[in-house]
Amino acid sequence: MGKPLRLGIAGLGTVGASVVRIVQSNLSSLTLRAGRPVTITAVSARDRKRDRGINVDGFAWYDDPVAMVADPNVDVVIELIGGASGAAEAVVRAALAAGKPVITANKALLARHGVELARLAEAAGLSIGFEAAVAGGIPVIKTLKESLAGNTVTGIVGILNGTCNYILTRMEKEQLSFETCLAEAQRLGYAEADPTFDVGGFDTAHKLAILTSLAFGTEIDADAIYVEGITSISLEDIKAADELGYRIKLLGVARRTDSGIEARVNPAMVPKKSVVAQTSGVLNAVAFDGDALGEVVLVGPGAGGSATASSVIADIVDAARGHRTPVFGLPVNELMLYQKAEIQAHKGGYYVRLSVYDRPGAFAGIAKSMADRDISLESIVQHRRSNDDEAPGHTGAPQPVVLITYATRETEIRAALEAIEAAGHIAEKPTLIRIESL
Amino acid sequence: MGKPLRLGIAGLGTVGASVVRIVQSNLSSLTLRAGRPVTITAVSARDRKRDRGINVDGFAWYDDPVAMVADPNVDVVIELIGGASGAAEAVVRAALAAGKPVITANKALLARHGVELARLAEAAGLSIGFEAAVAGGIPVIKTLKESLAGNTVTGIVGILNGTCNYILTRMEKEQLSFETCLAEAQRLGYAEADPTFDVGGFDTAHKLAILTSLAFGTEIDADAIYVEGITSISLEDIKAADELGYRIKLLGVARRTDSGIEARVNPAMVPKKSVVAQTSGVLNAVAFDGDALGEVVLVGPGAGGSATASSVIADIVDAARGHRTPVFGLPVNELMLYQKAEIQAHKGGYYVRLSVYDRPGAFAGIAKSMADRDISLESIVQHRRSNDDEAPGHTGAPQPVVLITYATRETEIRAALEAIEAAGHIAEKPTLIRIESL
Repeated sequence: MGKPLRLGIAGLGTVGASVVRIVQSNLSSLTLRAGRPVTITAVSARDRKRDRGINVDGFAWYDDPVAMVADPNVDVVIELIGGASGAAEAVVRAALAAGKPVITANKALLARHGVELARLAEAAGLSIGFEAAVAGGIPVIKTLKESLAGNTVTGIVGILNGTCNYILTRMEKEQLSFETCLAEAQRLGYAEADPTFDVGGFDTAHKLAILTSLAFGTEIDADAIYVEGITSISLEDIKAADELGYRIKLLGVARRTDSGIEARVNPAMVPKKSVVAQTSGVLNAVAFDGDALGEVVLVGPGAGGSATASSVIADIVDAARGHRTPVFGLPVNELMLYQKAEIQAHKGGYYVRLSVYDRPGAFAGIAKSMADRDISLESIVQHRRSNDDEAPGHTGAPQPVVLITYATRETEIRAALEAIEAAGHIAEKPTLIRIESL
Repeated sequence: MGKPLRLGIAGLGTVGASVVRIVQSNLSSLTLRAGRPVTITAVSARDRKRDRGINVDGFAWYDDPVAMVADPNVDVVIELIGGASGAAEAVVRAALAAGKPVITANKALLARHGVELARLAEAAGLSIGFEAAVAGGIPVIKTLKESLAGNTVTGIVGILNGTCNYILTRMEKEQLSFETCLAEAQRLGYAEADPTFDVGGFDTAHKLAILTSLAFGTEIDADAIYVEGITSISLEDIKAADELGYRIKLLGVARRTDSGIEARVNPAMVPKKSVVAQTSGVLNAVAFDGDALGEVVLVGPGAGGSATASSVIADIVDAARGHRTPVFGLPVNELMLYQKAEIQAHKGGYYVRLSVYDRPGAFAGIAKSMADRDISLESIVQHRRSNDDEAPGHTGAPQPVVLITYATRETEIRAALEAIEAAGHIAEKPTLIRIESL
């Protein structure tokens, strides 16, 4: 049995408190799994007095997390403060400078400064564990870095934000509007008072940036990711999706294409029978495609103190055993520059919802705009609005029309929609949702 | 960059040939991921001349795999011969005796001799990698041993045999009999000429034995597993399951209970909306329940040369990096003796299909037999056979009746069925299928 691994934990929110709880209540089993005792020696948070349901009396307490890093009784620094800069960044830099391995759940920090931090870690021969940074308790990082080592990864598709998935699931199951479900999510604590980071797709983008780097061996570039959120998804779209055999999910998608890496966050139509479509509520799901393996999908809790802490513990055990792999799977100097494929180059099927003036020639005009750009339609759904049930002939009023296209280029479909709009056939901006065949 | 890791591969079937192919075509990426070059130096198989789609000229060839182990240019021995004893066992023992780490896909060997081999490996400070032994390309072993290290695992539920899942999926989708689907599986190469090992549930039992040991920290005991196969599943059961919102899947289930570890392989009713129920065809799925994490489910290809080889490669990379964890997660001496919970102690819901004589009092008698043992019925489905559609009153002919019980003990439901049989109410042996609530 080796000497104890002594942990310093910066940040005692729900995840930090759960880590303390798990380490304390599983001492003997952790010792056996880690091959040596694991013990917490120091912690840091803003308010010592706050009731966290844990006893911190046995730990050295630091108001300043950077000071904690310097504690000679801390071997490994666990950063659970959060945020792309500020205290979290200072703690991680201080740890690496002091020759101490880092474990973090901080997706924003990695998405922003990941490559530089990896360079510092590598130069110092240290590890940065971040299983908890993506998809909470689901072991997506270890799977990508270690289990898929023999694969050329060709694609990743993931539901990476529980808040959005909760809202979309509620909208579908209860036939409620986006606004109603968002308010409910806020009431339940699943969404922040300012929900932009989640519903705007930015949280998903941070996580996707990390997965993309691991999957394709590229430097992280969070800004290269195309981002659409779910705020424009209407109940009408949810209903139409259902009718056509799809569900709408906010996905992070990354794929190798001829023109580079296509990485995007967008609401997508996914076939109902896929595992991703079946992933409901606050759960996350990540599907990996590898050339040797084929597709493997992991489903589980993507957030929550104790699930996320479970991932932190896995990193602690790896650190205790001295297991170390390059931060992003490859040595930093081998990471390729990110070759971005523009969203305009995206090729796939599309769901298009139009509000079409019910006038002679309108539909023919729309069909021609599509045909002119070689866009083939797989299906067309038109329901007359209920108050028009008995209206004979053309009423002139806008009618919802849903089109599903076969695979086409984003440039083509956008050009077709512009032409349709310019011709005055539609009453509102068209809704465009990419179809993910999975 | 360290010195090369030199591999000796015993067994060049579909998995072995795929390992050779992947190592040869990913040399540079594997070197980066492993931190050192990985190279194949020796191979062994029965027939050197056989066309395997790979070139073996560059490797030392051994007709005798045990002789290959002794080759001084072999650092790690990869055993892909298969079988619980014979050559496979000899190779693994020779490797451990020679101080060489082992990687194997051999579930039968581990289920039978796992504890003893782990003891030998531990004494010699060697690893035995066996990611490929369970669920093919899905990283279930690493997830259990490493990612769930901070959890007390409470349960495992898995679809671990692609042959059975293929047959059950076909039966449901095409409304065909077990025999027809088995013949089809044999024609497609998914099932052996003698399918007993698969359809009898024994293959699933070997895999479950390994997972159970990892999950609960117990010595492997394949004989402690209760096994029922799928040969008695009729199309009638599949249809009734569908009507009641379930699918029938052959599951490996292991749970901690008050009376010990309940480990069993049986066809089970699973709710249609669960990920496990959605896993169709030759795919596998494994759901883990951990106290910190909650439930995580992994879905992917459970067989096939290249998917399984992907898991072998993951073990090779771990070996190259010198990453070593105890074979079954804990040091051998810390593994507990397996405390078996008898199947009679199982508690859960049941699906019961009876062929009931359509006579006065029959149904009342059945209901009383259930009530006498405090068994509550959740639903009762009775469809008159179509040729009896217009028969008024009791015909005396046997009619299918399906009952779904609330949670009850196996002893109680079995006693009730014995009483029903003894009372002469039913024309055939009852069909009993456990319900897995997931």
